[in-house]
Amino acid sequence: MKKVSLSDISKELGVSKTLVSFVMNGRAKEKRINDEVAKKVLAKAKELGYKADYLARAMRTGKSQTIGLVMADISNPFFSKLARSIENEIAKFGYNVIFGSSDEDHIKSGKLIEVFKDKKVDGLIICPTVGDKNHIKKLNKEKYPYVLVDRYFKEIPSNNVMVDNYGGSFEIVDNQIKSGRKKIAFINFNVELINMMDRFHGYLEALKVNGYELDNTLVKNVSFKDIEKETYEAMEELLNVNPKIDSIYFANNRLAFLGIKYLIENNINDLKKLQLSSFDGFDFMPLMQMHISYGIQPIEQLGISAVDSIMKQINNKEESSKHAMLPMDLSLIN
Amino acid sequence: MKKVSLSDISKELGVSKTLVSFVMNGRAKEKRINDEVAKKVLAKAKELGYKADYLARAMRTGKSQTIGLVMADISNPFFSKLARSIENEIAKFGYNVIFGSSDEDHIKSGKLIEVFKDKKVDGLIICPTVGDKNHIKKLNKEKYPYVLVDRYFKEIPSNNVMVDNYGGSFEIVDNQIKSGRKKIAFINFNVELINMMDRFHGYLEALKVNGYELDNTLVKNVSFKDIEKETYEAMEELLNVNPKIDSIYFANNRLAFLGIKYLIENNINDLKKLQLSSFDGFDFMPLMQMHISYGIQPIEQLGISAVDSIMKQINNKEESSKHAMLPMDLSLIN
Repeated sequence: MKKVSLSDISKELGVSKTLVSFVMNGRAKEKRINDEVAKKVLAKAKELGYKADYLARAMRTGKSQTIGLVMADISNPFFSKLARSIENEIAKFGYNVIFGSSDEDHIKSGKLIEVFKDKKVDGLIICPTVGDKNHIKKLNKEKYPYVLVDRYFKEIPSNNVMVDNYGGSFEIVDNQIKSGRKKIAFINFNVELINMMDRFHGYLEALKVNGYELDNTLVKNVSFKDIEKETYEAMEELLNVNPKIDSIYFANNRLAFLGIKYLIENNINDLKKLQLSSFDGFDFMPLMQMHISYGIQPIEQLGISAVDSIMKQINNKEESSKHAMLPMDLSLIN
Repeated sequence: MKKVSLSDISKELGVSKTLVSFVMNGRAKEKRINDEVAKKVLAKAKELGYKADYLARAMRTGKSQTIGLVMADISNPFFSKLARSIENEIAKFGYNVIFGSSDEDHIKSGKLIEVFKDKKVDGLIICPTVGDKNHIKKLNKEKYPYVLVDRYFKEIPSNNVMVDNYGGSFEIVDNQIKSGRKKIAFINFNVELINMMDRFHGYLEALKVNGYELDNTLVKNVSFKDIEKETYEAMEELLNVNPKIDSIYFANNRLAFLGIKYLIENNINDLKKLQLSSFDGFDFMPLMQMHISYGIQPIEQLGISAVDSIMKQINNKEESSKHAMLPMDLSLIN
């Protein structure tokens, strides 16, 4: 049986082969092709039994209709929700997602980037970790389509989509102060990731505009690797050294979860004495034994914006170094 | 600059090209190649600047060193943990994972299977949904390497890796009965997925061996699509129609989460009157306002076993129709 080609479809319908090609490559929307026409092309392709030969096309066009997604850990709810949003959004263009977890290790992320490039992904969506600067510089030099999500490097030009970590953090801490809290402790990670540093700067600014001085004994930084042990140690030190602490602010949901676990295990549950807040939360937090107020990250929009950027680049429409910033949802802080 | 080939590496080291090829294709372990030798090959490849051309090799060998993973929803913690386990395990063979979510819709899963095949994935790891029977039969006919995880179809031969849903469910319900509970309600999904049906059969068997009769008013089935609304309705009906209910058993963690949410929102919290259990849980369940006992699914092992099966098939070593069954961890039930 003769293989059905794009020409066969174009002849049968009396439309141009270019138009058929755009539709079959998922670019109908972008090329403003009439919906009805696009539907007819897809129906005819199905009727004739047209099958795209991805690999042959990838060899010919250099496009694999696949995106490489490099993140810290797919099993972390933040990243699995982000992966889902990216999957949904990029499916509209007929693309699929190949993924890899770096565990915040730049050697791993560097390898993933190289492997995905070797597999001829059309673009990369990267949540970079500390030490990824050289990998990003290399992508810039090669003009390889990529977009950074959740983190970026101020000194390296890049297309990136960020959450307003500074602004969200400021509002949460400012809210704690306005509700009368005097000694607000902060637990963060001991890494130079811009998203986490911006949360620290938001904390600092909220103290400053309210006339509070920074008390270094109230700030603890823990490592990714030993997060459980070190968060427990931080909680213990905070509560023992500073009996007057009346609020603890966690830089993310994992830290908040471990902090609450520590408090419950140690029967510390007087929220009049100790208020809790976190930059972001989990769905289940309202059902916990202790109340905590938290912001909600715009994860779905993060994925949508990242896909928008990478598809524009793939189709040669994106200007470089576009920095997008998405606001936090702060409806749950109180 | 001349492209470095496998022959160049083999000549430099004085080893066979086949050996170099095995090492570079991530098959050193499988081919029992000495670790030291493998390391030398990798070091020499790096020194010479050897680069695998994945696409060209994929065209030549028909192997893309990529696995397609079809699951219900990557943002569901069960699947994101499974995806992570598969990613980790398959990386040992130099493979990557391309994924897609079906949302329990067999039209979506069918499309994903076809797209991944078109992209020449070497094998598929599939969590099939109701209605996927024909897709699995087709894969059998084509002798395409695949393995089913978490669900399978009894009447269709397949390689599959399952959790002992029946046995785990039996133990949990038997435990509730042994602790004195008389009226144990059960909330499950209204679908013919074998994993969920096996959990129901475990419930039935536990009632039977303890001399209890099945009371149909105690069993509720809700839909995936309207899970929140229908779980709330099920809770309301159960508690209103059967005031003597002294235990509710949830068929999975999502249902348990919603059930607990309902109870907290309605101030029903006397656990002496109402005991809670779930087939599986979330990390945060011990921190909830209400105690619930639950099993722990062997998700990591599920991923490891699935990768073992698919890699054996890819390397033509697996017999067909191998049914693996992994036990539940029941250390948290009480």
